[in-house]
Amino acid sequence: MYFDPKRVTRVTTIGGGPIGGGWAAHFLARGYDVTAYIHDAAERPILDAIIDTAWKSLMALGLAPGASLDRLTVVTDISDAVKDTHFIQESAPENLPMKQALYAQLGQIVPPDVVIGSSTSGLMMTDIQQDCPTPERCVIGHPFNPPYLLPLVEIVGGKATAPAAVEWAGEFYEIAGKAPLIMKKEIPGFVATRLQEALWREALHMVANGEATPEDIDNALINGPAPRMAIQGQCMAFHVACGAGGMATNLDQFGPALKLPWTRLEAPELTKELRDRMVDGCNEIADGRDFEEMAAKRDEQIVAVLRAIRDTS
Amino acid sequence: MYFDPKRVTRVTTIGGGPIGGGWAAHFLARGYDVTAYIHDAAERPILDAIIDTAWKSLMALGLAPGASLDRLTVVTDISDAVKDTHFIQESAPENLPMKQALYAQLGQIVPPDVVIGSSTSGLMMTDIQQDCPTPERCVIGHPFNPPYLLPLVEIVGGKATAPAAVEWAGEFYEIAGKAPLIMKKEIPGFVATRLQEALWREALHMVANGEATPEDIDNALINGPAPRMAIQGQCMAFHVACGAGGMATNLDQFGPALKLPWTRLEAPELTKELRDRMVDGCNEIADGRDFEEMAAKRDEQIVAVLRAIRDTS
Repeated sequence: MYFDPKRVTRVTTIGGGPIGGGWAAHFLARGYDVTAYIHDAAERPILDAIIDTAWKSLMALGLAPGASLDRLTVVTDISDAVKDTHFIQESAPENLPMKQALYAQLGQIVPPDVVIGSSTSGLMMTDIQQDCPTPERCVIGHPFNPPYLLPLVEIVGGKATAPAAVEWAGEFYEIAGKAPLIMKKEIPGFVATRLQEALWREALHMVANGEATPEDIDNALINGPAPRMAIQGQCMAFHVACGAGGMATNLDQFGPALKLPWTRLEAPELTKELRDRMVDGCNEIADGRDFEEMAAKRDEQIVAVLRAIRDTS
Repeated sequence: MYFDPKRVTRVTTIGGGPIGGGWAAHFLARGYDVTAYIHDAAERPILDAIIDTAWKSLMALGLAPGASLDRLTVVTDISDAVKDTHFIQESAPENLPMKQALYAQLGQIVPPDVVIGSSTSGLMMTDIQQDCPTPERCVIGHPFNPPYLLPLVEIVGGKATAPAAVEWAGEFYEIAGKAPLIMKKEIPGFVATRLQEALWREALHMVANGEATPEDIDNALINGPAPRMAIQGQCMAFHVACGAGGMATNLDQFGPALKLPWTRLEAPELTKELRDRMVDGCNEIADGRDFEEMAAKRDEQIVAVLRAIRDTS
């Protein structure tokens, strides 16, 4: 139904800002031909600067065979941009009417077997695809800044999106060297931004109350949970920290602490069902490894991360 | 008034669990003589195992000159534990009556020029020091797990703590190779745990609502914001991502998004005062560096962190 994700060789990026340009650099580094659409030829120097900057890091991480900046074509005509393309990554400004008009147009000129992914972080696909004549192939494919470095892409469809398009995007982004996260439901902010935003709002409360400065916030993260979170998410961090009892011990022992005013965010009721979902989820991730093995791996990786930070500071 | 922090050579740790044992390992690695108090001789094998595990990572990070496991003395008599010591790191169980009784005793037998730091993550020093006859030298010195790897120590006094003791702890922990964060106010959860807890509560909401699994949560963090947060806190991440306009652009442009339901946590009102505190704080951290320089440094460090993770996976 859709173009075979393994046979994609040409990708179109729409948008010449840090996200659009970052995506173009990423796809070039993975060995794709990239057609980059910019609104105005005057945006070209900015796009080039973004790609040149990204390229340094991408080279350091390792390019795919055949990857080259020479495989970039920059166009200012949207019809040229979508010609012969196998996938479109849209990173236009975060403006709903503008995106709706763009998708109305793309929906007509892009062959229906080409999936369109939107980089939006704040809008819902159900709204974006409203005026698109072919909404079934439109999905969210939300990266994290900088998009050429952080692997995450959150994928979710709108009400009119075909499940097959969501599935296709998951396969394609994985082939293209990203870490896709296919969402269960269309919720504002997706998963990662919601987590980051909860932390951010609490940080703003602390600054507003004179409890911490921005420097305190950043130091607390850099020297505290973040190096661990980079190699072990918060669920597994608690699971492994609680020894053989794992997440079950964590929730049974610290569950009452969810009632304490440790943040301005109210925690959900710790029902039996939620407890079990957390415990089962962690056991699935652990996949039979015991906590000592996981703790040793955690330490080895934190050491590597701390040394990497130290050696580049 | 207090023992010169630069002349500290002997440290006492109280508690044989992962936090107490982790602290003992850290101080040994930094070249101190360590007297470790455990409640019962039967806890010794557990303590030894914790220290042995930690030692592998500490060796990989680099030991201080003269650091040796031979400089550890383990005792089960609290009077022996505090003899000739220059600092006490208390990591007893998180039980308020137990801690209060311990501080009542320590307050009598520990010379008054020795500062006592508590590893508690959930209790307030104002409560812990309630029955201590010499409460002025008692402070919170809260590490992050694993305490032998993550540099952060959050420091705050209780109502009866002398400001000089808080200051002393800041100096001492820094000399001892930690990253001290002296808190402005005594608030539950301190800074880092509040940030982590806000994220954690939102994660629990998402799992409770079937919006994400524990695996989704962890993948979103590991592949998304965490590698960046490990080298650039959330304030500077936004500051640098917004180009030359920095945090001011971020707040002026995305301020309205604080009203959006991107988390279950309500954000504070974005007053002029809060805006200015955030902007001024980021400019202070930036210390004259322009955003291009900071973005390039960010990328270099994220590359190093991603390679460190990849090479140890």
